[in-house]
Amino acid sequence: MKTSLNCIPCLLNQTLSACEMAGGGDTLKEKVMRTVLAKLAEMDLNASPPVMASEIHRIIRRESGCIDPYRELKREYNDFALSLYDDLKDIVEKSSNPLDTAVRLAIAGNIIDFGVFSEIGHDRVRESIEQALVAEPGIDNIKELSGVVSEAEKILYLGDNAGEIVFDRILIETIGAEKIVFAVKSGPVINDVTMEDGLQSGMSDYVKMIDNGSDDPGTILEKCSPDFLREYETADLIIAKGQGNYESLSSQERCICFLLMAKCPVIADHIGCQAGDLIIKLKENVKCRI
Amino acid sequence: MKTSLNCIPCLLNQTLSACEMAGGGDTLKEKVMRTVLAKLAEMDLNASPPVMASEIHRIIRRESGCIDPYRELKREYNDFALSLYDDLKDIVEKSSNPLDTAVRLAIAGNIIDFGVFSEIGHDRVRESIEQALVAEPGIDNIKELSGVVSEAEKILYLGDNAGEIVFDRILIETIGAEKIVFAVKSGPVINDVTMEDGLQSGMSDYVKMIDNGSDDPGTILEKCSPDFLREYETADLIIAKGQGNYESLSSQERCICFLLMAKCPVIADHIGCQAGDLIIKLKENVKCRI
Repeated sequence: MKTSLNCIPCLLNQTLSACEMAGGGDTLKEKVMRTVLAKLAEMDLNASPPVMASEIHRIIRRESGCIDPYRELKREYNDFALSLYDDLKDIVEKSSNPLDTAVRLAIAGNIIDFGVFSEIGHDRVRESIEQALVAEPGIDNIKELSGVVSEAEKILYLGDNAGEIVFDRILIETIGAEKIVFAVKSGPVINDVTMEDGLQSGMSDYVKMIDNGSDDPGTILEKCSPDFLREYETADLIIAKGQGNYESLSSQERCICFLLMAKCPVIADHIGCQAGDLIIKLKENVKCRI
Repeated sequence: MKTSLNCIPCLLNQTLSACEMAGGGDTLKEKVMRTVLAKLAEMDLNASPPVMASEIHRIIRRESGCIDPYRELKREYNDFALSLYDDLKDIVEKSSNPLDTAVRLAIAGNIIDFGVFSEIGHDRVRESIEQALVAEPGIDNIKELSGVVSEAEKILYLGDNAGEIVFDRILIETIGAEKIVFAVKSGPVINDVTMEDGLQSGMSDYVKMIDNGSDDPGTILEKCSPDFLREYETADLIIAKGQGNYESLSSQERCICFLLMAKCPVIADHIGCQAGDLIIKLKENVKCRI
């Protein structure tokens, strides 16, 4: 997916918010903003939004000297999501369609996205859960996903955000962890999951985890490690969580199921749904190898 | 008032919206956005927000060849506000405090600001009227304003937006048009009032009008004509409508009453109120010459 001009104000709001998280004062903010504005003036709009976001967060880390501005926030949301774990697990176990319910919850957790929102709050996560359990998804390929999941011998699950990873864990437990590899970022960027979040969330106790060799938001394949690319190429199904993974992988000809909440109008427009919609979208016109 | 870094995403949203109004396609938008981003990277943050906004709208007019992108919208909101005139006039005439009511309505009309919002809608204007009649203003200098208005022999009223001008007309009729001069822009910028809006709204039938010699948003005194500056210097009271006039005149040591709705968090923070508040603010620490 290309970058829309409408992404630019949003990337700049993200820049200001990340500078704040990095504990920077006005001097840092001004320096970073001027650097980012000059980069945006020359940016390649054919690249996906995570390419520019990655560059922005690299500038912030370099200028602020803070290598993980969202660290405290990630820990907070991992802990908060863990406090919900038993209740969420109970909802799935009592459901007449556990896969559908677990997928909905995994998408509900996608609200915890500090790339899109500068503030979220625990109540908003609770609301997101309630809404996701009853909402009509904008695209609902749950039946197709269910078929591919049961046939697949190897699934690569691309994680998205801290906190959300606990919701992913419940989906992975529902599918069966033995055939899944869960991928995280090799270094911190926004509130994306890293190995540290895998440990905090308990994910690493349940499933094989790898890092993708990149500290970019989304999954920019050219920046990923050979080990990760081997997993990507050999998986029967890739479950790609969140907007960043959709933005960077939507044009790939692979058996990918995108699970996300379409939080911004640019993404909603690209998908052909309403902003706020739950999306369970199996990549069209691609024959899964199973 | 200086420009905040938080104004930058907003100025870019305004850029995209104005390009849309100018009927420009993606090529125009991209060219304008790249030019504006490069300007923003070098901007003087000590200047007020209207200085940069003015430069942006000049770029859009030049690149699009459209000298008044908001022309249809301005006409629409003048007509819509005129359709409300009789009802609003009735509310003021039946009020136990006509000046207070007319001031509240004039501020309600300040919702019609296409510099802040890309869409408004007639219902939102009606809601704004209902809310303004009962709201607790964030700053309420109505008593002080009432005193200065009744003593003043000459009032300069700085208009803000099309549509809103009809609300201003009701306030001017309530004060008494004979001692008022109503100032508009000398050329189109955003949906700011020009002489054409004075004619459409009926304002020019009621009160002496001048243009300020500038086509900048707000009132950038260095860009205004000698004739306007003479009115500005000799007025006993200046009534400055809207955010743009607050942004450009808040540091002036003159007897100014700012009437506005504080629509954005940057303005609200500068004033010391909540976003959405009605503001009736007589410039502090300035002795009016009456």
